Amino acid sequence: MSKVKVGIIMGSQSDLPVMAAAAEFLEAMDVGYELTIVSAHRTPGRMIEYAENAKARGIKVIIAGAGGAAHLPGMVASLTTLPVIGVPVKSSNSIDGWDSILSILQMPSGIPVATVALNGAKNAGILAASIVGAFEEETGAKMATFKNSLKEKVEDTAEEIESKGWKTVLRNQGH
Amino acid sequence: MSKVKVGIIMGSQSDLPVMAAAAEFLEAMDVGYELTIVSAHRTPGRMIEYAENAKARGIKVIIAGAGGAAHLPGMVASLTTLPVIGVPVKSSNSIDGWDSILSILQMPSGIPVATVALNGAKNAGILAASIVGAFEEETGAKMATFKNSLKEKVEDTAEEIESKGWKTVLRNQGH
Amino acid sequence: MSKVKVGIIMGSQSDLPVMAAAAEFLEAMDVGYELTIVSAHRTPGRMIEYAENAKARGIKVIIAGAGGAAHLPGMVASLTTLPVIGVPVKSSNSIDGWDSILSILQMPSGIPVATVALNGAKNAGILAASIVGAFEEETGAKMATFKNSLKEKVEDTAEEIESKGWKTVLRNQGH
Amino acid sequence: MSKVKVGIIMGSQSDLPVMAAAAEFLEAMDVGYELTIVSAHRTPGRMIEYAENAKARGIKVIIAGAGGAAHLPGMVASLTTLPVIGVPVKSSNSIDGWDSILSILQMPSGIPVATVALNGAKNAGILAASIVGAFEEETGAKMATFKNSLKEKVEDTAEEIESKGWKTVLRNQGH
Amino acid sequence: MSKVKVGIIMGSQSDLPVMAAAAEFLEAMDVGYELTIVSAHRTPGRMIEYAENAKARGIKVIIAGAGGAAHLPGMVASLTTLPVIGVPVKSSNSIDGWDSILSILQMPSGIPVATVALNGAKNAGILAASIVGAFEEETGAKMATFKNSLKEKVEDTAEEIESKGWKTVLRNQGH
Amino acid sequence: MSKVKVGIIMGSQSDLPVMAAAAEFLEAMDVGYELTIVSAHRTPGRMIEYAENAKARGIKVIIAGAGGAAHLPGMVASLTTLPVIGVPVKSSNSIDGWDSILSILQMPSGIPVATVALNGAKNAGILAASIVGAFEEETGAKMATFKNSLKEKVEDTAEEIESKGWKTVLRNQGH
Amino acid sequence: MSKVKVGIIMGSQSDLPVMAAAAEFLEAMDVGYELTIVSAHRTPGRMIEYAENAKARGIKVIIAGAGGAAHLPGMVASLTTLPVIGVPVKSSNSIDGWDSILSILQMPSGIPVATVALNGAKNAGILAASIVGAFEEETGAKMATFKNSLKEKVEDTAEEIESKGWKTVLRNQGH
Amino acid sequence: MSKVKVGIIMGSQSDLPVMAAAAEFLEAMDVGYELTIVSAHRTPGRMIEYAENAKARGIKVIIAGAGGAAHLPGMVASLTTLPVIGVPVKSSNSIDGWDSILSILQMPSGIPVATVALNGAKNAGILAASIVGAFEEETGAKMATFKNSLKEKVEDTAEEIESKGWKTVLRNQGH
Repeated sequence: MSKVKVGIIMGSQSDLPVMAAAAEFLEAMDVGYELTIVSAHRTPGRMIEYAENAKARGIKVIIAGAGGAAHLPGMVASLTTLPVIGVPVKSSNSIDGWDSILSILQMPSGIPVATVALNGAKNAGILAASIVGAFEEETGAKMATFKNSLKEKVEDTAEEIESKGWKTVLRNQGH
Repeated sequence: MSKVKVGIIMGSQSDLPVMAAAAEFLEAMDVGYELTIVSAHRTPGRMIEYAENAKARGIKVIIAGAGGAAHLPGMVASLTTLPVIGVPVKSSNSIDGWDSILSILQMPSGIPVATVALNGAKNAGILAASIVGAFEEETGAKMATFKNSLKEKVEDTAEEIESKGWKTVLRNQGH
Repeated sequence: MSKVKVGIIMGSQSDLPVMAAAAEFLEAMDVGYELTIVSAHRTPGRMIEYAENAKARGIKVIIAGAGGAAHLPGMVASLTTLPVIGVPVKSSNSIDGWDSILSILQMPSGIPVATVALNGAKNAGILAASIVGAFEEETGAKMATFKNSLKEKVEDTAEEIESKGWKTVLRNQGH
Repeated sequence: MSKVKVGIIMGSQSDLPVMAAAAEFLEAMDVGYELTIVSAHRTPGRMIEYAENAKARGIKVIIAGAGGAAHLPGMVASLTTLPVIGVPVKSSNSIDGWDSILSILQMPSGIPVATVALNGAKNAGILAASIVGAFEEETGAKMATFKNSLKEKVEDTAEEIESKGWKTVLRNQGH
Repeated sequence: MSKVKVGIIMGSQSDLPVMAAAAEFLEAMDVGYELTIVSAHRTPGRMIEYAENAKARGIKVIIAGAGGAAHLPGMVASLTTLPVIGVPVKSSNSIDGWDSILSILQMPSGIPVATVALNGAKNAGILAASIVGAFEEETGAKMATFKNSLKEKVEDTAEEIESKGWKTVLRNQGH
Repeated sequence: MSKVKVGIIMGSQSDLPVMAAAAEFLEAMDVGYELTIVSAHRTPGRMIEYAENAKARGIKVIIAGAGGAAHLPGMVASLTTLPVIGVPVKSSNSIDGWDSILSILQMPSGIPVATVALNGAKNAGILAASIVGAFEEETGAKMATFKNSLKEKVEDTAEEIESKGWKTVLRNQGH
Repeated sequence: MSKVKVGIIMGSQSDLPVMAAAAEFLEAMDVGYELTIVSAHRTPGRMIEYAENAKARGIKVIIAGAGGAAHLPGMVASLTTLPVIGVPVKSSNSIDGWDSILSILQMPSGIPVATVALNGAKNAGILAASIVGAFEEETGAKMATFKNSLKEKVEDTAEEIESKGWKTVLRNQGH
Repeated sequence: MSKVKVGIIMGSQSDLPVMAAAAEFLEAMDVGYELTIVSAHRTPGRMIEYAENAKARGIKVIIAGAGGAAHLPGMVASLTTLPVIGVPVKSSNSIDGWDSILSILQMPSGIPVATVALNGAKNAGILAASIVGAFEEETGAKMATFKNSLKEKVEDTAEEIESKGWKTVLRNQGH
């Protein structure tokens, strides 16, 4: 496996079904990663240790997911000079995700968190890979291929709708 | 001065004009307090030390004010078994205060923060005094007197309006 | 059973499934409590009697839960010098909980309510116990043990994910 | 002066500049009214006395204004069978008025408050007069005249714009 | 049946399941009412005719329910001097009810709508009955009895919980 | 089939079940249209080509639907002088539709998008037909017939409720 | 002057400073327009007459501006088959514009309003001109020139910043 | 000057006073940057050229600021594999910044934008520098020094408050 460059952490095991998408994308791009549970509120000591040592262990980017009054991404950002990507998770106790978003996004001057969309763990993985890819060409090339695949998928759908007609396509979707 | 029972902390000196009202109320009730700056994001080490030692130093309640993605009250609550009162501050970088409120109020199960109204530092002081007053009768008696004074002030205003007429009172207010 | 120190009230029996979590936590900490129904809007007389006599009956903290235009916590706070913890309940007639939160949190100067997260009854119980524990060491010690258990649970999960791999854990969750 | 039929109350003297508009409209319609200060949170006893005696004193409609976690209109409604009109006041401690609106509007089943727009005290006066006017023809006739005056004012403006041209009118407004 | 005093209208038949609660309450109070469909947007002519003739037909209060960009209550209020009660309906095309609420509540100066809670049709019925009851003692007496029944129901529940214990009650609810 | 005058595009095939309603209405009005997939983010080149050539191909109005951070309608509007109607789609990743609405509606000065209600694809079709109908009388006449049918449907329902009684109608709806 | 093709109406003279921008743009494009005051709530009869006769008078597009519970655009749309553009005005009684936006945008199925940004009167003028321009080539050509001018203005600014440096430009702006 | 590694772009010159903070921070860290105006809506061609060539010109990170329906960051992200940092600007036409935030943050799966706080241009600069610093040690070291300076500034303030007393400090601030 490739050297670990991205650390994925989350506040609780219940965030795993959302956060797994970040790991899956990094695997597909062959970017080394690690994934574990670190809670700002329940294991502050563990969080500090993780954040303070990440750079020395070779990590380049940290992805942190949390929900509700989500303090993990911001606290980790305060403890490292590495870029931290925050994933607001729409957890069961969240108010439609607004608390998750605002408590990650609205960081004070001096300590940014690179926030992605609500439950946007896949996009966090893509962002981490694009950071690595900006400096390491092997990953950069894979990202270009990925980007192209997005385009092709849309073009295929468009062609299908234009050739078969939208009513057929809609019916095939089960509507 | 009385023994320090309430610790007032805030993330930045710019929160002081708001947070001062908590200190002023505690002084009026003769409840001992201390006040300093502790930033979750800029001085995480200092925050941990403050929170972990507060109980041993005799503190009974901590009041923490912060704005934007406000992590100080929740992080302190994660580091102590003392009750923590959170004051959402409508700081200059806040979105009408919504971020401050949600990132203090919506704490996960296990780590509550006793949240008061936006910029409600005086109410934080009152709540801290009411906690002390529930267990120490000298403070409890002062709180009863304070509560009565709220009533009397309203009754005086009501009497003034009823005797002078609301138009006179409104004119005297400069309208 | 221990002496009753916490009074738990709610506006309607339909709040009971949410509010029960406060009672359960207090039982686990062996903090004496009582639980009943008091409606600000339907039984204002009963509410006044409850609030005005609570302190004399030995109550130290009141937990009040209500939803929609939730007036119970604030009205009780206006009738006692005891600390009042408010639980915004996401009742069926609530607009995603915003009304419940704002009508409990945004109390005017002079009458604070210690507000916890939406449906955060367990956190209300924890907050009440932490208030008692700040003054009575037996409860304080139990709170320290509880706090430690939160940490251990996270560490166990982290270890499981790191040893078995997140894919196995996710599969075991049924995903 | 005419017999008092409308009671106007508000939580604080600071609401008077807003609430005065209700009184002014009732005067213009020659509907008898009274105006005073009653605080749900600071003078609960006074509030109960006011609400419980209003009907016996001949009052037909109560107008109650309050801001923030505004409990006065709803609590008064719980204490009387008279219709209660609530005016959400955008007070200094309010979050853009949302708290004032939701804590007056979202009353539970059984205890309605007739809510008008934020700071809509004049509309509260109009609504009170329309209620009286539905049952007492003298007031009903005055309301019809008032309604007609609204139409005429718009028609006059329209005519001015159409005859002079909008640029002239805009310039005359000082733009 | 009693003379019709309350007119209940709604924008669409899909509002009927919500709005029926207003009719049911008026029946229980023996207040005469009528109920039909009037759409501001689809039958503006019918709406005007309804609103302009309501007073002459003996109607004292109009209850109007609508959802989304809800114009019916406000437009009817612009066409009559009778008090109009607006019920914001959380229809399928509504954004969590916010559009329904704001487009009914925030009427301009001069044309109030007495707005009740989201989907609060029962409260609209109660409010209409309380308006009638303020002027006609037979209905006023029934409203006093209704108000008392609200109190008794809460007291019965409280007694059940206090005698059987909340755990038994919760279990009986199926939790 | 009639000459194509309306172009319907959407960012993803998952928007088709919502957007189909626009096509269906245009068919009913016999207004020629085409429908395909064009993604601002995945196929920017395709989007530019579509928008820049639409007018030359005889298109008079473009309907563009998208959800979340919805850029398609605004970007297309920046690339053509044709009127662009935007349909905010409440897609699975949207926050209750607020992001979809605001990122389509709040276009900067110079580049308007004619925004319709959330998921309002049918209304987009109606708006497009009304634009065509303002200039081409055949379509204008069909729109008048359509408008009349809306009125008749409401009148039929009203008559049914008034003749059968609302309870019967409600029961027939399955309530 | 050119034949009147666009009718601009607004609920109140206080909307004129905002709405003037629509007229100014249409003048610049040499598209004939008229402008007057029509209030849905204060002059419903006048509104109906205006909307029902607009098409016969040669109007192709109606622009309607209103604030708060803004019913004018939607009511006019219900009374004509012409396309109606709605401008949500952030009037003094509006809650940050949310009420204006939602009560114009969220029209029910069957009666669309082409909504533009808050206070977006200039964009309403542009949209109206683009509708005319889609069918009448003289206006279409002017719109293409206008669109190009937007591009050139940005390119000029970019060139200035790149040649002089952003610090000089910022200083020249008075910062 | 150092080699250009960060490209700063914004939709309009009016964003410059906000966006300048990003440039200033990069200068302080000695990270090469360029700054210009690129509008998604007014110069789509220029935007495409900028985004598609950035990587080949040696750029590692793009910072894009925009307000209202802000499409620049997302469109640039769709046109490059480089990481794109989005700054939601609270421009004059924005609704308290909500539109700016949501139209940048809520990007669809596949095309992330690293969003920072409202008006958080300085944090965008810090984030860009932290990305460069993760791969180039000279910048990484400077970031560590910067992080330390944040801590020291708070400690100095804390010491001042503790030694002089908060009342003196508050008075010195002019309160």
